[in-house]
Amino acid sequence: MSIFDTTLRDGEQAPGNAMTPEQKVELALRLEALGVDTIETGFPASSPLEAEAARLISKRLTTARFTTFCRAVKEDVAVAVDAAGTDRHEVQILATASDLHLTHKRRISRAEAVHEITETVRFARSLGVESVSIGLEDATRGAPELLRALITSSLDSGANAVVVADTSGCSTPQEFGDLISTVRGWAPPPVRLAVHCHDDLGLSLANSIAGLQAGADEVQTTLGGIGERAGNTALEQVVALLRYKGDQLGLYTDIDSAAMYEVYTLLRGVIGLDEVRNQPIFGQYAFGTAAGIHQHGVLRNPATYEFVEPAHVGRERSLIVARHSGRSVLHHLLGQLGAELTPEQTDTLYRRHILERPGGDCEDISVLRARLAEDLGLPR
Amino acid sequence: MSIFDTTLRDGEQAPGNAMTPEQKVELALRLEALGVDTIETGFPASSPLEAEAARLISKRLTTARFTTFCRAVKEDVAVAVDAAGTDRHEVQILATASDLHLTHKRRISRAEAVHEITETVRFARSLGVESVSIGLEDATRGAPELLRALITSSLDSGANAVVVADTSGCSTPQEFGDLISTVRGWAPPPVRLAVHCHDDLGLSLANSIAGLQAGADEVQTTLGGIGERAGNTALEQVVALLRYKGDQLGLYTDIDSAAMYEVYTLLRGVIGLDEVRNQPIFGQYAFGTAAGIHQHGVLRNPATYEFVEPAHVGRERSLIVARHSGRSVLHHLLGQLGAELTPEQTDTLYRRHILERPGGDCEDISVLRARLAEDLGLPR
Repeated sequence: MSIFDTTLRDGEQAPGNAMTPEQKVELALRLEALGVDTIETGFPASSPLEAEAARLISKRLTTARFTTFCRAVKEDVAVAVDAAGTDRHEVQILATASDLHLTHKRRISRAEAVHEITETVRFARSLGVESVSIGLEDATRGAPELLRALITSSLDSGANAVVVADTSGCSTPQEFGDLISTVRGWAPPPVRLAVHCHDDLGLSLANSIAGLQAGADEVQTTLGGIGERAGNTALEQVVALLRYKGDQLGLYTDIDSAAMYEVYTLLRGVIGLDEVRNQPIFGQYAFGTAAGIHQHGVLRNPATYEFVEPAHVGRERSLIVARHSGRSVLHHLLGQLGAELTPEQTDTLYRRHILERPGGDCEDISVLRARLAEDLGLPR
Repeated sequence: MSIFDTTLRDGEQAPGNAMTPEQKVELALRLEALGVDTIETGFPASSPLEAEAARLISKRLTTARFTTFCRAVKEDVAVAVDAAGTDRHEVQILATASDLHLTHKRRISRAEAVHEITETVRFARSLGVESVSIGLEDATRGAPELLRALITSSLDSGANAVVVADTSGCSTPQEFGDLISTVRGWAPPPVRLAVHCHDDLGLSLANSIAGLQAGADEVQTTLGGIGERAGNTALEQVVALLRYKGDQLGLYTDIDSAAMYEVYTLLRGVIGLDEVRNQPIFGQYAFGTAAGIHQHGVLRNPATYEFVEPAHVGRERSLIVARHSGRSVLHHLLGQLGAELTPEQTDTLYRRHILERPGGDCEDISVLRARLAEDLGLPR
């Protein structure tokens, strides 16, 4: 299976996430270095900045394929190819795949939708781009006959890949897996079949995995799961899950999992994104614990409360001292410092540094260690 | 199925989330008003503040059951009952359910683990508490023989409920569903069987649902998914999913979904939690869109890019003006204002207010409307 990253397109178009072309280039190179197979650069016809980003990225990438996002109109494809050439360039053309979108957004018929996508696919092929994919927007609310017509006529016109998009994030794993099975019947290998999921119901990862298990061979992701509304499937969640459960799921990726967090940190700086307190893999405290009942175990063996090894995903374990930290963290530190105290002295320290800590106040264990060393007049 | 909320215990013990007893009471009353069946108050034996919270909550709740968290030692149960009485009180006793935890954290044998849980269950029953549940810590990494021994001997000793905890968040929906099926065989109705999942791999919601479909009848959640490391299963995600997909999943809840966000907002204030940009249901932009290609659809019919109706979960739709907003939002506003402009004038406004907007800068559509009205000398 391959990884298609849309941080620079679907991630970037969401509120607050706009980037300059130069910022996109820097991130694209870092995504390429991680081992991402395809990097979506943006929507060139939407603005000169987007065209410029595609142009710059096309010149700088050396191993990854890149994709541009186009509506089903020849002008969009012409702008994309004019900006970024044809080499290692996949043009992704949006097909309107539900009657809801046809009626209420596009105001065109099914036949017109099939006509525009086939004409645009044919045009892209005529320009000599390396790969043409069709992105089936709102596919999870689309009628099977419409999906089938869009897919088969696009493939007949020269498309190489099909993207099934759960645009509104309305799907469950069962539904999405069933849809992918059906679509696979209309788009057999070697056609690349990709899944593109949104997290509106909190199921984008589970849906993506269900799709891959049902026959898709590419997953679209964003770093940190940024993207429209609740966001897209998070790259780091896919990679971590496959690293630990790939054998069971029958899925494999060779993305450099330990380097992802550094690229995410760069992204956060670019788009001014705050750290999220609790979030899989990249959360502020995803590998930090404060509760005594957990610290007691972690101090003896981190595996007791850790399944993902932090170093595998570029993170570090942290022990946080807070009101819920028990005595074990204090005993641990006093032992490290070689302090010999009476039970009463220890109890005083416990009350002062742990139990009577106000509200959500917390700090890293190293800070408390330094403070205790100072209190007790011991070397750190 | 019933909803068991652990915002005030597993959520509260995570770094940064500590609350005062009074804050817990306020949140408990709001959770009760939402229709949550059981509210976990905290871990009374861990500190006088936790005992006080249990005491206050036990006096104030009128319809919901509440739970206290206890280790498998009689002293913990005695403290909990002393604080909160026996009426509508479920004592939840932690059973050590994996050899990993037995060996590396507890340093006791399987037989000792079975002995301590049965003795503590029996003690709790002897005090007359309304319900006793056993919480199988690290059950997803536990050997079947150990789980079975803990469950059957606890039920024989008078336990009413069993909680299967994916403590380290290591499970997949397939694995977790299989485990729940197996456990259900040892704990048939009317024993209440609850699932408690963590989001370390991004699958806590999918795992919880798989567990409920496999025979569990209670799900443990937290508001906003706060909790240890990556957090717990989010209440709002369970409720929204069941509201929209309950028929398909065969699951139903009558939680007041529209009122959840207000309680979450209160929680955010209490624990100083920043809004998360992209997150299901409660994210800052979960119902906001900035990209022209989406706004074009949303302005015609919000259903094009919305599956969950914002009002159903206490949110409002927002249209955000950013660099990616197309011309449709501008035409929409100019139409509303009754402005009659030449194409050149419109183009100038498009460049000034949309295309040349710096970086991630964005604002609500109402702000742009006011600005345009002022620019054009029109009434707002």
